Amino acid sequence: MKAVQLRGYDRTPELVDVPDARVEGPLDVVVRIGGAGVCRTDLHIIDGQWAEKSGVTLPYTLGHENAGWVAEVGEGVTSVSVGDPVILHPLATCGLCRACRAGDDVHCVQSAFPGIDRDGGYAEYLRTNARAVVKLDPALEPAAVAALADAGLTAYHAARKAAAHLRPGDRVVSIGAGGLGHIGVQVLKAISAAELIVVDRSPEALKLAGELGADHLVVADGTEAQAVLDLTNGEGAEAVVDFVGEGGAIEAGVKMLRRAGNYYVVGYGGTLAVPTIDIISTEINFVGNLVGSYADLAELMVLAAQGKVALHTSTYALTDFEKALDDLDRGLVRGRAILVP
Amino acid sequence: MKAVQLRGYDRTPELVDVPDARVEGPLDVVVRIGGAGVCRTDLHIIDGQWAEKSGVTLPYTLGHENAGWVAEVGEGVTSVSVGDPVILHPLATCGLCRACRAGDDVHCVQSAFPGIDRDGGYAEYLRTNARAVVKLDPALEPAAVAALADAGLTAYHAARKAAAHLRPGDRVVSIGAGGLGHIGVQVLKAISAAELIVVDRSPEALKLAGELGADHLVVADGTEAQAVLDLTNGEGAEAVVDFVGEGGAIEAGVKMLRRAGNYYVVGYGGTLAVPTIDIISTEINFVGNLVGSYADLAELMVLAAQGKVALHTSTYALTDFEKALDDLDRGLVRGRAILVP
Amino acid sequence: MKAVQLRGYDRTPELVDVPDARVEGPLDVVVRIGGAGVCRTDLHIIDGQWAEKSGVTLPYTLGHENAGWVAEVGEGVTSVSVGDPVILHPLATCGLCRACRAGDDVHCVQSAFPGIDRDGGYAEYLRTNARAVVKLDPALEPAAVAALADAGLTAYHAARKAAAHLRPGDRVVSIGAGGLGHIGVQVLKAISAAELIVVDRSPEALKLAGELGADHLVVADGTEAQAVLDLTNGEGAEAVVDFVGEGGAIEAGVKMLRRAGNYYVVGYGGTLAVPTIDIISTEINFVGNLVGSYADLAELMVLAAQGKVALHTSTYALTDFEKALDDLDRGLVRGRAILVP
Amino acid sequence: MKAVQLRGYDRTPELVDVPDARVEGPLDVVVRIGGAGVCRTDLHIIDGQWAEKSGVTLPYTLGHENAGWVAEVGEGVTSVSVGDPVILHPLATCGLCRACRAGDDVHCVQSAFPGIDRDGGYAEYLRTNARAVVKLDPALEPAAVAALADAGLTAYHAARKAAAHLRPGDRVVSIGAGGLGHIGVQVLKAISAAELIVVDRSPEALKLAGELGADHLVVADGTEAQAVLDLTNGEGAEAVVDFVGEGGAIEAGVKMLRRAGNYYVVGYGGTLAVPTIDIISTEINFVGNLVGSYADLAELMVLAAQGKVALHTSTYALTDFEKALDDLDRGLVRGRAILVP
Repeated sequence: MKAVQLRGYDRTPELVDVPDARVEGPLDVVVRIGGAGVCRTDLHIIDGQWAEKSGVTLPYTLGHENAGWVAEVGEGVTSVSVGDPVILHPLATCGLCRACRAGDDVHCVQSAFPGIDRDGGYAEYLRTNARAVVKLDPALEPAAVAALADAGLTAYHAARKAAAHLRPGDRVVSIGAGGLGHIGVQVLKAISAAELIVVDRSPEALKLAGELGADHLVVADGTEAQAVLDLTNGEGAEAVVDFVGEGGAIEAGVKMLRRAGNYYVVGYGGTLAVPTIDIISTEINFVGNLVGSYADLAELMVLAAQGKVALHTSTYALTDFEKALDDLDRGLVRGRAILVP
Repeated sequence: MKAVQLRGYDRTPELVDVPDARVEGPLDVVVRIGGAGVCRTDLHIIDGQWAEKSGVTLPYTLGHENAGWVAEVGEGVTSVSVGDPVILHPLATCGLCRACRAGDDVHCVQSAFPGIDRDGGYAEYLRTNARAVVKLDPALEPAAVAALADAGLTAYHAARKAAAHLRPGDRVVSIGAGGLGHIGVQVLKAISAAELIVVDRSPEALKLAGELGADHLVVADGTEAQAVLDLTNGEGAEAVVDFVGEGGAIEAGVKMLRRAGNYYVVGYGGTLAVPTIDIISTEINFVGNLVGSYADLAELMVLAAQGKVALHTSTYALTDFEKALDDLDRGLVRGRAILVP
Repeated sequence: MKAVQLRGYDRTPELVDVPDARVEGPLDVVVRIGGAGVCRTDLHIIDGQWAEKSGVTLPYTLGHENAGWVAEVGEGVTSVSVGDPVILHPLATCGLCRACRAGDDVHCVQSAFPGIDRDGGYAEYLRTNARAVVKLDPALEPAAVAALADAGLTAYHAARKAAAHLRPGDRVVSIGAGGLGHIGVQVLKAISAAELIVVDRSPEALKLAGELGADHLVVADGTEAQAVLDLTNGEGAEAVVDFVGEGGAIEAGVKMLRRAGNYYVVGYGGTLAVPTIDIISTEINFVGNLVGSYADLAELMVLAAQGKVALHTSTYALTDFEKALDDLDRGLVRGRAILVP
Repeated sequence: MKAVQLRGYDRTPELVDVPDARVEGPLDVVVRIGGAGVCRTDLHIIDGQWAEKSGVTLPYTLGHENAGWVAEVGEGVTSVSVGDPVILHPLATCGLCRACRAGDDVHCVQSAFPGIDRDGGYAEYLRTNARAVVKLDPALEPAAVAALADAGLTAYHAARKAAAHLRPGDRVVSIGAGGLGHIGVQVLKAISAAELIVVDRSPEALKLAGELGADHLVVADGTEAQAVLDLTNGEGAEAVVDFVGEGGAIEAGVKMLRRAGNYYVVGYGGTLAVPTIDIISTEINFVGNLVGSYADLAELMVLAAQGKVALHTSTYALTDFEKALDDLDRGLVRGRAILVP
């Protein structure tokens, strides 16, 4: 089959012929790829930034946001059949450890991560396992939702945690309305009735957020914390979902928080630094967020099928992978780039 | 009545005659003091450290950990009667704001804090309101429990939050086995079946923790994080309750935490500084803790009446207040000092 | 002032002149009535069905769904001012008992219920207390929302409990789309993304439910349980909210429930009778629902101000109370009847 | 291997030679039996009461409460190794359905139940799968804990659900102190600080409950509901855990419940029949309980290893199975009968 493989760091990946992905274990599932998201992480992988962390052996196939159709299943697979349209949870988990058993798949003690630490979805076929495949509603095209598999899933996970504590009349701030943030905005509007304030540096991103239902738009120009206080009777918001996590976002974000409020850390890069006296005197909380669980992905696909969460995508043929990576690097992709074999 | 008043900062308070505390509003309750805890915060107040924060006008009566008997009630008070033995929640709250209505009394938007921002319990009588008085089981002597009203309540509040997520087989670390910590140890043993690891610099404090039921004792000598990992199969603990919050406690404490674990910030003084990448990659949470609610205090009194939480106290006559403050300052008090009028 | 009083059971109430309602206790609030809902319960009161239960002494003023403007406040009231537009929680609660302190106002151990056990809102003025008044958004007219104070509040309370457990992809059934049910439908659509199936005997009621956003409409003609199973892959729904509670509704409703599902009992009249083997083998739950709390009412008013929950009303002058009661009795009221002084 | 098989209904099972249990699928685990509980359900199976429900084909091997040592594992098993001491969750679940993924194993859509619908543990070896085996602490002897695998697990599950809502000062009633009830009593004392009232017809069972830590003992002689009200200031208990579920237990149990209280249905046989007006006017809940999850069993084993939950057992050689069944039928077993191969 055709696959785009990384054969050395700091060089362009290559389209090569490799043996077809095949079922190897009893719970394996091979998926014919319908679309694979091209993500900024792929650029970092090519640069070698993930080499040590992932421990992957080159050459290997890129692509960690995948959807398609089941092509082959192992003998122990009872949950999907050949031909089913599916989206792939990023992790192929064990199903036996305490975390898996509790639904916290992402804390599985022995998961694999196709596209990161083994062959991914820039290819015609990909091997994962039965615990990773979420059946799609017939209304959803794999290529249209593939990019929700990782970034979208992370945004859903954090937004859902926040929404669980939000009641009508509460205020929630989304810091960032970009890749993750604009999914977060759609999710928060779909599953809560809280008032939504969106903060971003980019007027264009804010405009999109407004079209997606945000109640208030705030430009992040250094006065954003005060602007949020002004919008909340000086009290601050019950929740802040921080999709940025660096630059001045954290410092400003903490100031936006109401007494007993929750701060959801999603973006990363910077350091959370808060005097303990400020944490205890206002009794605020900081909540970490990794990618979502399998159940989160299944729920996100329901919202997608209902038309409540949508993603702009630009499709590229698998053979045009270089252009897709290049466009992404140069900021020329509208929405998310998707490779289609 | 007799009262110990602060008449100027950086000077010894004085025992003076002042008008009796009297009911002023319809929900007021006047309490005849049975015991008032002498707390390190009182030393800081005398030094002037709280002058700006509390905004109190001198002279005023110290004492914010109080218990006694109801002496007089306002016309709107239906929940206690003259003669009832009571312990006082530190805050006299409004009962009308959103926080009060939800049981989060400590976030009341218009509370008073006797002993901090108005006359307290180093006196024969104290005025608070009906929302602050918790009736005591006849088995409990006011002077014996007064010191649980603030420090003990804070420890209970944090321990209870932690226990709500702890199941048999989970591990919880108490950083600190001193004033708050040794209450926390007793509470955790009373309301959860989790394995309890206590960390402290002082071998004596650890010895007491062991007698109170701690399962593992770890000396905080710079190797404590590794020691906790060793005790938890290298995984870390599901919860860390940090009663210290300064020095190296926080850095070590965060290392003790399991993936998806909860870190309860109780002690303060230092700064919580954690790279956001570490928060999201392990999906850990930081939970602020202020003093407990009225319901928390009522529950703590149940544990006290059941003999599950006990406090060592040293009693001083109100007229010996100088010796009590002096003994506290010089580290000579065994347990907690209590002034008895 | 003018008031419509019941002077004997089984006789028409009378419009009489009575002394103005006045503040009597420190937390009292007197409200100038803007609108009072005319409810089926009022017909039952007149019939004498509530005589023993309420223990009220005749004559007294009817009206337990009230909204208006604050006219006078007691000396202890800090949360509202004269002139504020307000809706009234049905109960005037104590604020001191355990239930009140936990936000479960409706389980207050010493509440009063204007319109049921003391003078209500079929009058120019009504006395309640500070814990019962919810300030209204300026966009809301008291007469337009008064009828949400009791029936609407009950529907919100149950729908909110259900929504707390519903995630995208879950199915919820509303049995009944009448007075309470059509509010429940609006609330469920506003605060959850679950798929909503509405069951009712009346095609007209179903039509309205469809306009309000219900995803599936099922006629209750004896085949409704099977219809719901057919709509849910034979699994049943994760939640059933039963606004009827009598006739065959319960038997059918229990059959609609998925394993581990929740059945919310709201309507009443019949008996819940389920073999314990059926309860344990499917591990289903039955959840009782009384009227909502103060916080629930505040949240419902947010949804009303956002235009997410609306009520059809027909306005009658207070002097036309007989016609309003008569129209209600004969099924001639469109939406809810409101008396306006 | 030797196995005790049922070869026809209403006849004594027989000890026969059958082929050794062997791994058949990739996730299978074969366990060398260390002990198999003899349960009243086995008598009912022999009588044919379960024939239709289980759909099992005769002959088959009885025994659904099993513990022992891992003897063989399938190729996909990563969580246990040959030689590990284990207790067996009653169900061998799929790990792929929504219920499994959420930790609600007992609602798995395609589970097997050894001893009920396929060969069980009255034998030298038994086949289950990797998702059913809980590793035992070295301090625990398989034969000593085997009988906790089903009845004990059910009691733990219900007690844990109740404990999650119980705070110090709350009261919980255990109806029944027999097989399940006396485990429930130990669990409630281990994981909550609530006051425990135990109700049973048998003074002997009550005596045992008292030794296990029950705070109040009430004879079920028709006055038990009043006795519980007397013990709870006339308010009723916050929770009732009903291990009986038939006879007058339910009627009495519902009367013991406080407003907003929770009634946990565990025992079965009778019918829960409550007028809906009583459910809504006091806002009480009824919570179904099936057997516990895998996580519940793991937690129960922690309590067993800590010595907090213990079971009296009487050991019989596998060859003495007839005597064990006979003793059970005639009420001669002290504690639980265990067959040891």
